[in-house]
Amino acid sequence: MDRLAVIGLLAGPVTTSGFVPQVIKGYRSGSMSDVSLFMPLLFMVGMILWLIYGVFLGDLPVVLWNGMAIILSSVLMALKVRSARQKRKGAEPRVTR
Amino acid sequence: MDRLAVIGLLAGPVTTSGFVPQVIKGYRSGSMSDVSLFMPLLFMVGMILWLIYGVFLGDLPVVLWNGMAIILSSVLMALKVRSARQKRKGAEPRVTR
Repeated sequence: MDRLAVIGLLAGPVTTSGFVPQVIKGYRSGSMSDVSLFMPLLFMVGMILWLIYGVFLGDLPVVLWNGMAIILSSVLMALKVRSARQKRKGAEPRVTR
Repeated sequence: MDRLAVIGLLAGPVTTSGFVPQVIKGYRSGSMSDVSLFMPLLFMVGMILWLIYGVFLGDLPVVLWNGMAIILSSVLMALKVRSARQKRKGAEPRVTR
């Protein structure tokens, strides 16, 4: 395998791995206030297009790493929605009397 | 141009655009506490590999959209570092007397 093929095969997993520390951070802290929902949302739409492209070309690495990244993006979106809900709940006026 | 080529050409800009709302949010609020530094860092390393791959294959869309995404990731990293510094500064004990 030549050097270029190795670079191509490494690019997918390294890029996809970028979601992991954010998922861990969001899961542990429970707070995603500083994270925009549109980031994982747009990533996801783009990667669904890559996935379709990869399926039609029969390009396994493109399908595999985009598929993984789509799952991780949806986890980020779920964490963001959970965080926003909890924040809203906390901001509700409380009956203190 | 067939449908698959259109999908392939859309995938790059849509995915790269995902960085934009996060850059805007981080810039406006000045807070990136909930954002992991390792997310843009790993994305960046992965996309540098994609860029090298694209350059060697002479694939202009791959070079263009990964290049843009590398710039946007570095902006996110700068916003994160700025946010972490300001937080540290705010946490310093103050002489109140």
